[in-house]
Amino acid sequence: MSALFPNHEPSQRTLQHMTYTHLVQQIKSKRSFLCVGLDTDRNLLPTRLRHHLNALFLFNREIIDATAPYAVAYKPNTAFYEAEGANGWQQLTQTIQYIRHHHPHIFIIADAKRGDIGNTAQRYARAFFEELGVDAVTLAPYMGMDSIKPFLTYPDKWAIVLALTSNDSASEFELQPLANGQPLYKEVIKKCSQTGSKEQLMFVAGATRPQKLAEIRAMVPEHFLLVPGVGAQGGSVAEVAKYGMNCDCGLLINVSRDIIYAGQDKDFAHAAALKAAEIAQEMGRWL
Amino acid sequence: MSALFPNHEPSQRTLQHMTYTHLVQQIKSKRSFLCVGLDTDRNLLPTRLRHHLNALFLFNREIIDATAPYAVAYKPNTAFYEAEGANGWQQLTQTIQYIRHHHPHIFIIADAKRGDIGNTAQRYARAFFEELGVDAVTLAPYMGMDSIKPFLTYPDKWAIVLALTSNDSASEFELQPLANGQPLYKEVIKKCSQTGSKEQLMFVAGATRPQKLAEIRAMVPEHFLLVPGVGAQGGSVAEVAKYGMNCDCGLLINVSRDIIYAGQDKDFAHAAALKAAEIAQEMGRWL
Repeated sequence: MSALFPNHEPSQRTLQHMTYTHLVQQIKSKRSFLCVGLDTDRNLLPTRLRHHLNALFLFNREIIDATAPYAVAYKPNTAFYEAEGANGWQQLTQTIQYIRHHHPHIFIIADAKRGDIGNTAQRYARAFFEELGVDAVTLAPYMGMDSIKPFLTYPDKWAIVLALTSNDSASEFELQPLANGQPLYKEVIKKCSQTGSKEQLMFVAGATRPQKLAEIRAMVPEHFLLVPGVGAQGGSVAEVAKYGMNCDCGLLINVSRDIIYAGQDKDFAHAAALKAAEIAQEMGRWL
Repeated sequence: MSALFPNHEPSQRTLQHMTYTHLVQQIKSKRSFLCVGLDTDRNLLPTRLRHHLNALFLFNREIIDATAPYAVAYKPNTAFYEAEGANGWQQLTQTIQYIRHHHPHIFIIADAKRGDIGNTAQRYARAFFEELGVDAVTLAPYMGMDSIKPFLTYPDKWAIVLALTSNDSASEFELQPLANGQPLYKEVIKKCSQTGSKEQLMFVAGATRPQKLAEIRAMVPEHFLLVPGVGAQGGSVAEVAKYGMNCDCGLLINVSRDIIYAGQDKDFAHAAALKAAEIAQEMGRWL
């Protein structure tokens, strides 16, 4: 390794472009709107992989190859990689490069939930879009539009803003009504959708409160929704499709644990493929 | 490097403990409540360092040695390290290990603004407290207490929750009044302070709205406040001290750019020391 380091000039890099049209085409062609969440935890991996230095990447690679026919997106969750320090970040990088190289039409979301003032948000955008090379990153809106806008300056890259999440304590702040009578998450959707088009902005909307999906869909008829909470957290594909779909589909449903940990030990990739196929088959009925 | 990786069992690790009492002692002994923000950007570094593979760490090391007499805390901002990928995360790790080894009484804050559902928040807590070994991590409260509580299970480790940030667009959501008439950031402070004591919970409260600091101090008389926004963003030490101090000081004022980029090229560390000394001297007058 050289002691010299190349400059990080955006102009020197060719960034992958993933347009709205391309994403919709992938959904129609695969008859699936499945996003596989790569919440990869060393302690839950098959015995034969668990003690390898790059166990997370080795596991992801097999999961990706097995599930790619049924998935239009992968969503590595940065927490699981950061839990292994610099080596974890390296495995996150390897995972993204592997998808890019072997499955170039698949949409890659870094589930990072970042959010900071403008000058810091610019660095996060560089980290995720230029350095890691993902298509999209999830963002927390608490600090306001300063923390979202720098991500919208990259053509054909996506900001996915937390609106109404799938966890119980979404009730504590997200669902709190403001003085104007609207809950906080609707104010977030309103402000963000005034700034970002359907070509570069999505919202996170949990599957665990399906009726709310209909309200969100009414507010943003054209934007994609990234929907966690199906499977382990209790939401269902049928309800999400019923309340959240639009004429271009407009949905990415994420499933993590139910797919990647569907099997044990030797057969884990095959079991993951079967589970992904089953979910995609149900999705196909709604398209 | 071995292909085998050690298990990540918390019990196998000795975590640094930084108690409330120890932090207050450090402030009294140094007569300073200065936190130096390590927002280290390769493109802004002196020419002699800029092209080194580990330029961020080399710069930080000199800044830390020069400013340690005047600082009670360092706050690396994760965005700036992630912008360099796995190598950046490695330099973040090196920076933290360097502070631990050479300046063991200094409080280390990862300015990461993480926030996710409980099972993911557990992994972030592991990433920051066990793997990186910092004392504290900044957290975004949007998703509710699920995303804060896992950080409070570590004794003598700290969660620093965003309340009212220093940026303009804090007005968009944080300052929005809820149906009960209180702004969102006060609801955040209320809910969090019911869960975390002054021994493990702080709040971020920006220096750019000093009168609001008095309101926050009235709500949480005992909790430390981490205050960004002095210097480049326009806030002043005097106003923060006037409105935010309690009998144990209860303040960490962060200054990043004004200190670390005070000088150019050869004299950068000396210039940083002079600036840190000047700020600490002003702080000393308020203690």
